[in-house]
Order: sequence, then C-alpha cells, then structure tokens
Amino acid sequence: MTVTTPKGFRASGVAAGLKPSGNPDVALVVNDGPSAAVAGVFTANRVKAAPVLWSEQVVRGGEVRAVILNSGGANACTGPLGFQDTHATAEHVAATLATIGAGEVAVCSTGLIGERLPMDKLLPGVTAAAEALAQDGGAAAARAIMTTDTKPKSTVVTGAGWTVGGMAKGAGMLAPGLATMLCVLTTDAVADPATLDAVLRAATRVTFDRVDSDGCMSTNDTVLLLASGASGVTPTRDELAAAVTAACQDLCEQLVDDAEGATKKVAVEITGAASEDDAVEVGRSIARNNLVKTALFGNDPNWGRILAAVGTTAAAFDPDQLDVAVNGVWVCKGGAAAEDRSKVDLSGRDVTVKLDLHAGPATAIIWTNDLSHGYVHENSAYST
Amino acid sequence: MTVTTPKGFRASGVAAGLKPSGNPDVALVVNDGPSAAVAGVFTANRVKAAPVLWSEQVVRGGEVRAVILNSGGANACTGPLGFQDTHATAEHVAATLATIGAGEVAVCSTGLIGERLPMDKLLPGVTAAAEALAQDGGAAAARAIMTTDTKPKSTVVTGAGWTVGGMAKGAGMLAPGLATMLCVLTTDAVADPATLDAVLRAATRVTFDRVDSDGCMSTNDTVLLLASGASGVTPTRDELAAAVTAACQDLCEQLVDDAEGATKKVAVEITGAASEDDAVEVGRSIARNNLVKTALFGNDPNWGRILAAVGTTAAAFDPDQLDVAVNGVWVCKGGAAAEDRSKVDLSGRDVTVKLDLHAGPATAIIWTNDLSHGYVHENSAYST
Repeated sequence: MTVTTPKGFRASGVAAGLKPSGNPDVALVVNDGPSAAVAGVFTANRVKAAPVLWSEQVVRGGEVRAVILNSGGANACTGPLGFQDTHATAEHVAATLATIGAGEVAVCSTGLIGERLPMDKLLPGVTAAAEALAQDGGAAAARAIMTTDTKPKSTVVTGAGWTVGGMAKGAGMLAPGLATMLCVLTTDAVADPATLDAVLRAATRVTFDRVDSDGCMSTNDTVLLLASGASGVTPTRDELAAAVTAACQDLCEQLVDDAEGATKKVAVEITGAASEDDAVEVGRSIARNNLVKTALFGNDPNWGRILAAVGTTAAAFDPDQLDVAVNGVWVCKGGAAAEDRSKVDLSGRDVTVKLDLHAGPATAIIWTNDLSHGYVHENSAYST
Repeated sequence: MTVTTPKGFRASGVAAGLKPSGNPDVALVVNDGPSAAVAGVFTANRVKAAPVLWSEQVVRGGEVRAVILNSGGANACTGPLGFQDTHATAEHVAATLATIGAGEVAVCSTGLIGERLPMDKLLPGVTAAAEALAQDGGAAAARAIMTTDTKPKSTVVTGAGWTVGGMAKGAGMLAPGLATMLCVLTTDAVADPATLDAVLRAATRVTFDRVDSDGCMSTNDTVLLLASGASGVTPTRDELAAAVTAACQDLCEQLVDDAEGATKKVAVEITGAASEDDAVEVGRSIARNNLVKTALFGNDPNWGRILAAVGTTAAAFDPDQLDVAVNGVWVCKGGAAAEDRSKVDLSGRDVTVKLDLHAGPATAIIWTNDLSHGYVHENSAYST
C-alpha cells in the first residue's frame, strides 16, 4: 500500500553502506509509463542541498522516469563537488536503466548536512537498487529513506479506476516550506505536468506546509508527484486534488506522530481569523513557542503562554476577546481565566488546542509536537 | 552596587507571601529627587499585562517617584479586574508614601500568567516595603524581584560626578521586544524625560533587544530609567547614553548567563551584513533555531544546522559565500566544510558563533543560550 500500488511503477530499497547501522539506505522508484508527467515542490530554504538544485531543474522539464533517494547523508552545503556527486548519481541511474536519460532522473538525499556522500558506496548501491526493482517494492523503498524515523510512512488513496500512492520520511527539522522531509507520490491517473503541479501545490499548501514540529526548516525538502497514466483514466482536477491532498494529509499525520522525541501529537486549530494567512500565522506562533511546547510535555494546559505567543503576531485580534480550549476545556474566555484548568486531561498522546480570535470567518490547523527531553537528547547527539 | 548607588534613591525588598517559598517578593524603589524624570520601554507583545498598560500611561507623563515591583504573579491575562488590582496597588503606594500621587507610581509584576494577584497579601507587603525603605536597600530589592533566577542581577556604571545603577530579573521567556524581564535603572544625573527616553531607547535597542534566549516574548517586559538629578551634574547626551548602554549590557549578560537550564552562554556575531537589520535577522535565526541550540548543548559544532537557519532569512547573501567559525575554528568556508570540526573546543560555558555573510559592512551580536534538558525540565514543571 505505497508508491507501487498505482499501476505502472516499480520500486526497491537496498543497503549500500551509507548508514553505519547497515540498514537500507538507497531507494529507487521507476515510472514505467506510458506517461512520465511529474510535478515537484521543494524547500523554501535559500540554502538548498545539491539534490534539490538538481531535481528542481529536472522537474522543470515536466517528465521524470526515475527517482533515486538516499538516506545517510543530505549532500547539503557540499559546494560544487556535492552537485557533481548528485549529477553522477543521476547519470549512473540512467546508464543502469539504459532506456532513460539523466535529465529524467530526480535525486533526493537526507541525513547529516555538510559532508560529501561516499560515492564508492552509493553508486554500487544504485546498481543493486536497479536490480532489485519490483512491482511490490514500495515497502522496501519506504524503509530505505528513513533516518531518525522509527517506522516507514506510506499511504494509498483510491479513486474511480485510479489510485494515488505515497511514501515519506521525516522526523526532525519539520517546519514549513516544507516540513523537512522527502515524499514521493505516485498515481496511475492520466494527468499532464501543469495539472499535477497545480494539484500538488494546492495539496502541500494545506498539509506539509502546516506541519511545524520544531520550527526548523530543512535544506532538502522535496515532494514529487509522478503520474504513469497506466490506469487510462483521466480524473477531474478536483478529484485528483482531493486524492493527492488526502494522501499528503495522511503522510503528514504520520510524520507528526513519529517526530523526534515527541510525546504529543498536537493539532492547533485556529478559528475566527480575519484571513487564512492570519490563522496560519497565529497557529504557527503557538506551534513554535518553546514554552507552550514544554508545558504540553509537562501535561500543563498553560493557556497564558498560548496568549503570550499569539501576542507576538500581526494578526487581527483584540487581546480581551481571545478564547482558548485545551482538549475541549475552555480554560480562557475573553483573554482571562475561565473553566478550571484542572479539568483538562492531557494524559494521552493526542492534544487539541483551539483558539478563537473572534475577528472573522477564516480557519487553519497547524500540526506540531511537544518539546521533550527526548527531542533534546536526540538532537544533541545526532552528529556525534 | 545597585539602584540605590546613585544619590537620591531609596529601596527595599520584603516577603509578602506571594511566593509559596516564602522568599522576598515585593520590591519598592523611590526617587527622592529633586527631579522625578523618567523614561520607559515596554514589551512589544500585543498581549500586555495590566502593570504594563498602567506603567505605559504613567511614564507618558514624564515623572515617576516610585516603582513597586512584585514577583510571584505576572497579573497578565487577568482582564479588567487585573487592571483594577494594579491601580489599587499604585494607590496604596501613594497613600503609604503620603507625598506622591498614584499617577507617579509605576507598577511591575512577574510570575505566572493568567492568575489574579492575592491582594490581601500584596497590599500589606507594600506597606512593609515602604517601612523598610533604605538608602542601601538596592540589594534587597534586586533579590525580591527574582523568579526562576538563581541570583540577583545588579550593575553600576560611574560617570564624572554622577552614576547609573540598575537591577534586573529574568531567566525565561527571554526574547526580543524586550527580553522577558523587569529592569529598573536609576541615575543621579540631571536629565529631562525626553533625553532619558532617547538614551534608554538607544540602549535597549542594542542590548535587551538582542538577547534571545528562547525566542519567547513576554507579556510583562519593562525597563524603567529614573533620574533624581541629586548629583547636580548634567552629562552630555552621549555620556549618559554610553553609561546607560553599558549598564544595560552588563545586566543582559547576567540574564543570559543565568537563563533557565542553560549550560552555554552564546554570542552569535554576524559580520559582513548588507545592513544592521540583516545582521540582526540572521543572528536571531541562528539564536532561535532549536536544532542549533540542542547541538550546542551536545558540544557539537554543527555548522550545517547554522547554514540551514540562515537560509530561512530574507537577508542579502550568497549561500556559496558563507563562512562560519565556532569558538575560533572556521569549520565552514564558502558554504562548505573547511577546518576539521574536531578542533572545536565546546567544553566551556562561553561559546562564540561567528558568521560572515560577505554582503556588506554591517554587524550585530545576538546573545542566546543552548537548549538543554534543564530548560525542558524547568518549563514543563513551572506552573504545576
């Protein structure tokens, strides 16, 4: 139930030795067509990894027949030599598959920033991944792109005679523009690159762009949508958009649920905003606030910290009109204490923070996590 | 060596029972003149505590003869009744001191947000603080405003025949506009309110506004500068500005050194910026990045995370021109790895991160801390 569920795709995941653990670290996804239409959305970070710079060019051509992904190294901040490594990887994929050109190969990398990839291990890994390609290889591919993820992340959404599949990785550096992650979506629907691009941008805007686990934007974020057309069915744009959005949302929730060290999966629901931008800005200000996040880790419905976070935004609101509910208990009404905070049950993993700005009709949900000892531990030890 | 070092001031600190610990929690600073000139700078948070709303009005009049400060409760997000509590406190100070009006009394509060102050304890505490006023009472006042601070924070800067003294509190919610803190500065120099205002704004812009311990802006930040004129000396504006800036800088470094749970005091020095605004924006992006902060806690000179943070800004720079040094070792040159990261010694408490943007002549230093298990522990347990 992943990228190989739609017709026309093969995939694989192998261990090339990039990870000291010996776990799988190279994944390959191939679109056997008949169509090779593609769309992509990439990190908004101005410090972009070499594979992002490469794949942005490739996707601009509108056709991608293969995606090669590696964990165990981000190939970010590696200079011109790092870009050459990405180029050589794409060339090696093209040569191994024989029937495609390097300009039809997207490349994704994830792992530690600032170090060159060991090409003497990666290129043989690419060869092995090509040999392992299979119509049921999606699960192996999803496993090979994991870094600090504790489990692989896959999804399938079914249309009328066509299907959208997807896989993603990401557990830290989860923040907008996009969340730090790699994601490959596949579909056997018939769609041209322009339609795929419109559908994918609409989907990521309300899904991946609204995950803000730790406020830290990555250098490598990539979301690709590949269409094989193998179903022969052409859904309407709205049908395809709904399916792709559902697939992205499912993967987002899996990302937030598996975020580094997190003990809570938190939905920050903003209502009563004057505009959607206001709702997103306010939601993000709460999701990124370390004092709110540590309070949630401590099972503390500290709504004062939530109001202090909202006060840093430029959104339209009156401080004396703010209402806050934590897990259904309206602990703050009109900017001051309301229901007894001891009524709030924060013992579970799922938390909902609702904030009503009383300034208009717009809404948004931002997904985030608590800030835990586990997060500090994992991120203070990651590169050492 | 504190707010009572300049001539013309008395102060006190007493325990009124606001803190469960029984530690001192009410401080009073009185300006005996002859002048009562004042300036103030307050939080930029739009959710402002009642004492901030009150003191902004009072300071606008240009004269303050007493500042009453309490720890053990922020009186923020307490609605109209919270504002009445602040007003009643100022009236009680005026009535107790007999010779001044409530409109000449600034009020500062710090502690938990969202709960009313116990006025039955606070008002007798004000009476006791008035009785305890002394010309050497500054140290007691500095102690009474502490919350999670582990030590009181005071400073003195000496001019030619005049002096600036100061005290501050603050250990969490330390972020710009202003850092979450209360600060009272005193001087026996002769200066009118307009001069004091210009001098204080210039000083806080390059000191308190450049402390960013945890990115969380407070509801209660207040910095007051009171001038008694008791020295009879009128320094030039530049002389006074230099002394006030030095006093603020000294207090800032004490704040960062005592930040909640911090194991590192970090100076982020930006050079080569196209503008001072760019330098501040870039410095803040690094100072606020949880992945950079956890890496520093783990003694890890993870320059890749620093570049990833810089890439989120709108500042002028070329990603391939960025140089980064950690404690003097240039681990990144031209956007890629340079000197061996194992050469970086991060075993001490003081850390310097230097980033050269190679985009112009402007510079700025932002002060911050690491993100530690101690921070998570302290802030997940604070209100419970």
